[in-house]
Amino acid sequence: MHNLGAEMHHLCRELFPICRSITGNGFRESLSILGKHLPNLMTKEVPTGTKCFDWEVPKEWNITDAYIINPKGEKICDFQQLNLHVMGYSSPVDQVISLEALQQHLYSLPEQPDAVPYITSYYKERWGFCISQIERDKLVPGDYRVFIDSELKNGSLTYGELIIPGESQKEIFISSYLCHPSMANNELSGPIVATFIAKWLAGLKKRKYTYRIVIIPETIGSITYLSRNYKEMKKNIVAGFNLTCIGDERSYSYLPSRLGNTLADKSVLHVLSNLHPDFVTHSYLTRGSDERQYCSPGIDLPVCSIMRTKYGSYPEYHTSLDDLNLVTEKGLFGGYDVVQRTIKCLEHNEILRSTTLCEPQLGKRGLYPTVSTKSSGSEVRDMMNYLAYTDGKLSNLEIADKINTPLWALQETIDKLKSEGILELSEG
Amino acid sequence: MHNLGAEMHHLCRELFPICRSITGNGFRESLSILGKHLPNLMTKEVPTGTKCFDWEVPKEWNITDAYIINPKGEKICDFQQLNLHVMGYSSPVDQVISLEALQQHLYSLPEQPDAVPYITSYYKERWGFCISQIERDKLVPGDYRVFIDSELKNGSLTYGELIIPGESQKEIFISSYLCHPSMANNELSGPIVATFIAKWLAGLKKRKYTYRIVIIPETIGSITYLSRNYKEMKKNIVAGFNLTCIGDERSYSYLPSRLGNTLADKSVLHVLSNLHPDFVTHSYLTRGSDERQYCSPGIDLPVCSIMRTKYGSYPEYHTSLDDLNLVTEKGLFGGYDVVQRTIKCLEHNEILRSTTLCEPQLGKRGLYPTVSTKSSGSEVRDMMNYLAYTDGKLSNLEIADKINTPLWALQETIDKLKSEGILELSEG
Amino acid sequence: MHNLGAEMHHLCRELFPICRSITGNGFRESLSILGKHLPNLMTKEVPTGTKCFDWEVPKEWNITDAYIINPKGEKICDFQQLNLHVMGYSSPVDQVISLEALQQHLYSLPEQPDAVPYITSYYKERWGFCISQIERDKLVPGDYRVFIDSELKNGSLTYGELIIPGESQKEIFISSYLCHPSMANNELSGPIVATFIAKWLAGLKKRKYTYRIVIIPETIGSITYLSRNYKEMKKNIVAGFNLTCIGDERSYSYLPSRLGNTLADKSVLHVLSNLHPDFVTHSYLTRGSDERQYCSPGIDLPVCSIMRTKYGSYPEYHTSLDDLNLVTEKGLFGGYDVVQRTIKCLEHNEILRSTTLCEPQLGKRGLYPTVSTKSSGSEVRDMMNYLAYTDGKLSNLEIADKINTPLWALQETIDKLKSEGILELSEG
Repeated sequence: MHNLGAEMHHLCRELFPICRSITGNGFRESLSILGKHLPNLMTKEVPTGTKCFDWEVPKEWNITDAYIINPKGEKICDFQQLNLHVMGYSSPVDQVISLEALQQHLYSLPEQPDAVPYITSYYKERWGFCISQIERDKLVPGDYRVFIDSELKNGSLTYGELIIPGESQKEIFISSYLCHPSMANNELSGPIVATFIAKWLAGLKKRKYTYRIVIIPETIGSITYLSRNYKEMKKNIVAGFNLTCIGDERSYSYLPSRLGNTLADKSVLHVLSNLHPDFVTHSYLTRGSDERQYCSPGIDLPVCSIMRTKYGSYPEYHTSLDDLNLVTEKGLFGGYDVVQRTIKCLEHNEILRSTTLCEPQLGKRGLYPTVSTKSSGSEVRDMMNYLAYTDGKLSNLEIADKINTPLWALQETIDKLKSEGILELSEG
Repeated sequence: MHNLGAEMHHLCRELFPICRSITGNGFRESLSILGKHLPNLMTKEVPTGTKCFDWEVPKEWNITDAYIINPKGEKICDFQQLNLHVMGYSSPVDQVISLEALQQHLYSLPEQPDAVPYITSYYKERWGFCISQIERDKLVPGDYRVFIDSELKNGSLTYGELIIPGESQKEIFISSYLCHPSMANNELSGPIVATFIAKWLAGLKKRKYTYRIVIIPETIGSITYLSRNYKEMKKNIVAGFNLTCIGDERSYSYLPSRLGNTLADKSVLHVLSNLHPDFVTHSYLTRGSDERQYCSPGIDLPVCSIMRTKYGSYPEYHTSLDDLNLVTEKGLFGGYDVVQRTIKCLEHNEILRSTTLCEPQLGKRGLYPTVSTKSSGSEVRDMMNYLAYTDGKLSNLEIADKINTPLWALQETIDKLKSEGILELSEG
Repeated sequence: MHNLGAEMHHLCRELFPICRSITGNGFRESLSILGKHLPNLMTKEVPTGTKCFDWEVPKEWNITDAYIINPKGEKICDFQQLNLHVMGYSSPVDQVISLEALQQHLYSLPEQPDAVPYITSYYKERWGFCISQIERDKLVPGDYRVFIDSELKNGSLTYGELIIPGESQKEIFISSYLCHPSMANNELSGPIVATFIAKWLAGLKKRKYTYRIVIIPETIGSITYLSRNYKEMKKNIVAGFNLTCIGDERSYSYLPSRLGNTLADKSVLHVLSNLHPDFVTHSYLTRGSDERQYCSPGIDLPVCSIMRTKYGSYPEYHTSLDDLNLVTEKGLFGGYDVVQRTIKCLEHNEILRSTTLCEPQLGKRGLYPTVSTKSSGSEVRDMMNYLAYTDGKLSNLEIADKINTPLWALQETIDKLKSEGILELSEG
């Protein structure tokens, strides 16, 4: 674990300083860094103005520098120091204005005076600076030079897509988003865990399912991706996971799909309830990420979210405090572990059927104690309980839930019973 | 509110002194007073002896006077003072009898010594007087003249029926009963609220549903009405409400239909749980009003009861204490408000479908804040949650329940989304 | 009750000393004693080696004597004193061995030092003695003669079967097992209650259902019986009960069928929840008796277990302490009473339909008070509630559950309503 957690945190540090947005070079640069881990990751570009359902791809935004010069001639809100200082998608500006006029363009958080907030204005052209309340309170009347060297132009929206083929055309879908500037949990943790999960999957000798992994900008990215792929996705995806805020150490949490009780929901719930029984289940009514699109009426994909501490429910969320201390090696590894176990559960989720009526005679196969004592019953309890439900209708995941045992603890037994010919694959 | 509550209480005072029973002139007179508010209310007469399923319409009962003269020559149990003093359906009598003989014909409530009970004997001919325990205890041995000037003859059973047409032949059904003498909550409150609801409905510019409103005697009235109309009712009624005990201020309560979970149940539960979350749900096993007939096997109408404090569960029930103080302007208005909101929910209960895949772009239509801040998500939460379920399968009422928001709080949003073309009526 | 309880306990004392096992003369002798109560009980023999699904009938085991002579020449672990001293299915032995060698063949319970455990080794040939920890601790080094005069040979497995015909070919199934040596609750109580239930059933003038009652050895017996009869059983059995540990006074308990919610489950739950509301419901995951076979995938019979204190959950279980004091007259009668009431509920479980629409006029039939008072409603509550659900779809058992009344308390009312023509049998 230490290796993987450290490697993921290293990647997080590498990506952290880049100024990303829903379009532009920061997103491209970040994606190419992920690509060093995933040689088959494809970069797709969708031109500005492309219609995507009710939306269209916005202009591409790039920025090279920004700052304010205060009346004393000091540079403040320096983009080079912290890219959160500029409101995302700010239009270019180079003016000298009064403090009063400047105040209309400043954003701060009175209740978190040391935090610089993260603010964007994707769909209306304006400019602005984000500043801590402490610094804002120090501003004195006078002339301020405001400078933003940004460009909003026809360009394209960028996303990454990786298809890892499996034995079946049926797909497991993993989605995360890379459109936030220097914030670590929301959102570098998601694409980083997705990248390392993809790396593990690509290295497996065989996979039952095909894996579709996308790294996109949030909202407009999932809408764009769906508009190009939803028919195929609806046909093939059996379970999907949105990975977000998955790198801190505070909690584990889950936000269900809109349909609820899909295979995606069942598998995550199986892992979390067995591994982290104090996990938090959020209501779909509190959703705020790409499940909004994946689960929207008519799309209806079986996608739920796997998180550590959910966006909006930790104080550092969408501020400069969501940094490389909040996200840890241990936090990232814990998120990775849950996603990996969930996928393993799906890969092992066969429907098996007992090949004999009544309980099989396990003793003659060396699978059962031959002396009946007061305690021998409980020793083989799990095996017998598992067998009691192998009627060719319930999947291994459903049986594991019924008998209150994690599927990973049953797997060795299942493999043994299969090799003894006591179980066979059910036609369905 | 004050106007309506006051108007309803005024009507209650007007009706209160009349001696009503399940047949007779008191019922007719009361119905004609309601008719002053409802010009289209039709009075129907069903002759004595008419077969109604397992029952037949009883003889018509009328009474002009009744009293007892005690040994001192004083008039007690004077019908002119309080019509509850005479057992309902008493046969005529004019005798002088001993106290001992009289006691066989007296009814009182030892546990409520100041209350005159309400007693009837519809289906066996006998006579009796109801008296407070306090007065009863004062009776001394001697000769008592008992006098009841009543008449039991072939006549008819009377009821009122009002059909208010709507766009659809599908009906909302409202039933209440007017067969009790001078008692206010059980039962003048029900027909009074029904009358004012009918008045409001009749004044609407348009109605989706047709409304069938009946004012009947309890039990034999609903059986009689059903025997003449149940086939049409079963075909058309989508939701029905029995209004009873709906004028006091103590509580709000609901008694489900036998089938449970009908549209009638769902709509009342939506209103009460949002408006009066401390409302009481009674078990169908404790029913005692006309839902006994409307929900009986083979009839199976979707009818539940809306009440304030349920019959049998307040101490004044079926006594002279159920008077014009127990029922108040505020109490009546509260009941009216629940019934009206329930009907509005039904009128607005469309099934809508999103016209686009994924979330619509609300920003370009001015329906969404253009700056993304820490809090803007919650500002439009209700609208987005509503939209998340407009899949053309769930009704507005079901969606409102799912997102824990009263339908009336969503209505403006829904209308706006419809007018923007984001929602359309679903065929199914 | 006293008679029946005493008779059952008398039979228990008669059977107690016999050394039974899954095969052999002890089982045969015990069965013939039950046969004195049940003249039509048939004894069946299935030869050693007969294939039964994944199993085969084992060799037959008989034993005539066994003991150990200690270094002082004293006889200990004397089979004649307590047949539990010999491990079930011990192979014959006659050797002199050291204490150290003997220890490998001794079984005791350190945590219950005064109890002799019950141990068997059906499917691997070995020999052993069971001894209390207190006695074991007294053993001194020296030469021990171990003597077991047993025989393991080709023979047969014995079971009892009794078919009591009824009006319908549909069957109620009762199963219990008789393969344990001198222990009273687990398991003489089960076959004894089954025997007295069979006696009662055989004496009834008429029975709706046919009854199939089997007294078998546990596990191999039910597997053997199923392998010969399961097709017919699957076709005919509507409810079945495994009777075990049904003779102590501590608790009442129930272990559901694997399918859950079968008619068998519903009827037992109806009886226990009304009669012994503090009964214990065990999880199917803690099963350990013949429901393991009856409910196995592909067999899927509607069989649940009726118990007093469940095997494995009382300290005397599978030791010499499970004796004639633990099982009492009152304990046996309580178990018998639950089984009998369950069967009566099934025999009376008709689906009836009201012959009229709306409530029937009960007054004219003398079934309803003619004076309406404050309290008369509750007097006929049960009758009216029952009638409210006679829609020809719900069975009497389902209605009784719905209205929270035991079926036996409703039966007189139901019979009266049937004889008045208010109810008729539903076609289904």
